[in-house]
Amino acid sequence: MINALKNALELDHKDPLAPVKDKFELPQNTVYLDGNSLGPMLTSIKAAVTDVVQQQWGSGLITSWNRHHWIDLPTTVGEKIAKLLGAAPGQVVCTDSVSVNLFKLLGCALKLNPKRNVVLTETSNFPTDVYIADGFRSFLSQQECQLQLCDSAQLLGSLNADIAVLLLTQVDFRSGKLHDIAKITAAAQHFGIIVIWDLAHSAGAVPLRLDAWNVDFAVGCGYKYLNGGPGAPAFIYAAKRHHGNIVQPLQGWMGHKAPFDFDLDYSPSPDVRQFLCGTPPIVSMHILNTALDVFQDISMEDIRAKAMALSGFFENLIATSETLGEMQLISPTDPTQRGNQLAYRHPNAYAICQALIAENVIADFRSPDLLRFGFSALFLSFTDIANAALTLHKLVKTKAYLEPRFSQRQRVT
Amino acid sequence: MINALKNALELDHKDPLAPVKDKFELPQNTVYLDGNSLGPMLTSIKAAVTDVVQQQWGSGLITSWNRHHWIDLPTTVGEKIAKLLGAAPGQVVCTDSVSVNLFKLLGCALKLNPKRNVVLTETSNFPTDVYIADGFRSFLSQQECQLQLCDSAQLLGSLNADIAVLLLTQVDFRSGKLHDIAKITAAAQHFGIIVIWDLAHSAGAVPLRLDAWNVDFAVGCGYKYLNGGPGAPAFIYAAKRHHGNIVQPLQGWMGHKAPFDFDLDYSPSPDVRQFLCGTPPIVSMHILNTALDVFQDISMEDIRAKAMALSGFFENLIATSETLGEMQLISPTDPTQRGNQLAYRHPNAYAICQALIAENVIADFRSPDLLRFGFSALFLSFTDIANAALTLHKLVKTKAYLEPRFSQRQRVT
Repeated sequence: MINALKNALELDHKDPLAPVKDKFELPQNTVYLDGNSLGPMLTSIKAAVTDVVQQQWGSGLITSWNRHHWIDLPTTVGEKIAKLLGAAPGQVVCTDSVSVNLFKLLGCALKLNPKRNVVLTETSNFPTDVYIADGFRSFLSQQECQLQLCDSAQLLGSLNADIAVLLLTQVDFRSGKLHDIAKITAAAQHFGIIVIWDLAHSAGAVPLRLDAWNVDFAVGCGYKYLNGGPGAPAFIYAAKRHHGNIVQPLQGWMGHKAPFDFDLDYSPSPDVRQFLCGTPPIVSMHILNTALDVFQDISMEDIRAKAMALSGFFENLIATSETLGEMQLISPTDPTQRGNQLAYRHPNAYAICQALIAENVIADFRSPDLLRFGFSALFLSFTDIANAALTLHKLVKTKAYLEPRFSQRQRVT
Repeated sequence: MINALKNALELDHKDPLAPVKDKFELPQNTVYLDGNSLGPMLTSIKAAVTDVVQQQWGSGLITSWNRHHWIDLPTTVGEKIAKLLGAAPGQVVCTDSVSVNLFKLLGCALKLNPKRNVVLTETSNFPTDVYIADGFRSFLSQQECQLQLCDSAQLLGSLNADIAVLLLTQVDFRSGKLHDIAKITAAAQHFGIIVIWDLAHSAGAVPLRLDAWNVDFAVGCGYKYLNGGPGAPAFIYAAKRHHGNIVQPLQGWMGHKAPFDFDLDYSPSPDVRQFLCGTPPIVSMHILNTALDVFQDISMEDIRAKAMALSGFFENLIATSETLGEMQLISPTDPTQRGNQLAYRHPNAYAICQALIAENVIADFRSPDLLRFGFSALFLSFTDIANAALTLHKLVKTKAYLEPRFSQRQRVT
């Protein structure tokens, strides 16, 4: 740890993304290593919120659906996200939550593969993905849908021509292990399987080439690396080649080709808007729309390169500290094989996480014994990382985390 | 029209709800008769938004899920709405959109009535309700689900023991015709039918007694009479007697009894939170939470009485004007038989609506030929109504609405 701060300063000096940090409004003296749970606020959001609430809603009232283009907001936001996904225009829409969107895509994928009935996913997938698939299944007969789970290591060997849909999250929410989308998609499509990718921890974090990788469908999250605010709406990517053949179960009026004709019959929008359902939460979506502008002049390659450097720097500080020998890294050690996060196992993970938060180093605890650190390249400096490691070092060395106040569980962490 | 303003002033003078108007931030010299499409902004929202965005998100970051009780927001908001519905605590939750919530309840109701397969609704129902039911049906076999539509006049005669679910909106979005929830629910339950009520144009508008009327399930809208902002999240009411037996299709992690245990198996929350799915849009939900406080010291009976007086006053001004003879009222003439709105048929309805908006009288056009006026009791005065009628009178008398600029269709109105 001796030269940590000195080395960090040198790295910050050479960091081309360093100035971007100033666009964020972070609490003073705080190192925020949880941007992968909830991205922080950009300074631009303050004026944007005043505008959408006071001018657009307060003064414009109902006329803002036209005047301020609320009706187009799901696709306006979708197109901004598309650029981060390597997706040509017309394939991404902002709507609902990841969970609700997974349900839409599952239904759609099952209809596209009508002679098969197996939905395959991993036991290590984020629970909501499994819950959603299981909930869908519970309304269908066994002939129509079966849910199959496999270990991550057995994934490629589990693919076969009985499987209708493969449902995977690219970045494991615990370990950060990164799936190779191109390889797995091709392997699955070889068996005629439709693949749905959950990009919750990928969008805005790692470079993606959904079109080039021939991805069928994907969902992703607006409030993690996209910094869209708490519970920001999610998104759907649907490859253009499927657009003519989509039937999705949540067909609400906003997905109709002409919602304000109030037809009795549902005629879906011919484009990706057919994945819209009810009226979108405009204020939350406007915040996400504004937050996405930070990506305008930055390449995903630069973001990824810095995030790998940040996590590598942290990993090295922990690995070379004798005090932190009990911290057991469960993330892949090759930074190209993991998302922008590191997870460590420690028997006192919960208390250490609370003690870190008390020292303004905000990390994440994941039950039962994981400390998770997220490395968002847009607002973290190498000095932040050095300070976080030094604080962790101090807490473990003094065993300050054993104070009773740090072990009292709160419901959410 | 001669004494309209004088009479209005007298009525305003006697109106016990008159001071509530000052809590709203309405554009100057505007009469807003579209609160049933999008409620206006309360002044309190400005500080509330700054708080949730800058303090809770910006400074509190991820810790606000605990510190600012975001995790409880869906039930905090739900309990405030429950008071407007005549619902005892523990039965209402704020979540998703009306459309998504209807899907959850349809699945749930079909599971509660497993030996039947017919979903009955009206042809005059709001289209999204029909679309959602049809979308659900398209994923089930004919043995599992059939959709049946009837005319409103044939409703009671269409009830029989083959029907699993009756899906109705209490207030017709076009005519404002009001269903008798108690009577229809009892008639349907006599045949063992589960009833789902859509309260989009009822909640915050008319007194409701869901518990006393033995209602099974209901959904409603946050952005109309509840003034929760554009696309505010919706709500679900689920009678406590059903809580032990609920299976709903959209089982996301927020509906799990312990979301942060990240169990592989889904165990639903034992209470109404089992209708939650993904992460809620906190900023939009916080705005709704703040807006609901306006109802704290006001009875729904007083709101309804004033709204009936407002619509009656308007109706009378139109009916007694020779100039407005072409305006054909399609709403029930008995104010107790309609919600807080009036709809008139006119061959130039679209152009008249646009001309009214140009004169700062904001009404609603509903395709193909309806002018719809909403009477939100909280922020409208009788003087507003007189001014709206006088403006309408002037536009029709001078035929100013025939100017070409008023007939150019915009996509949304």
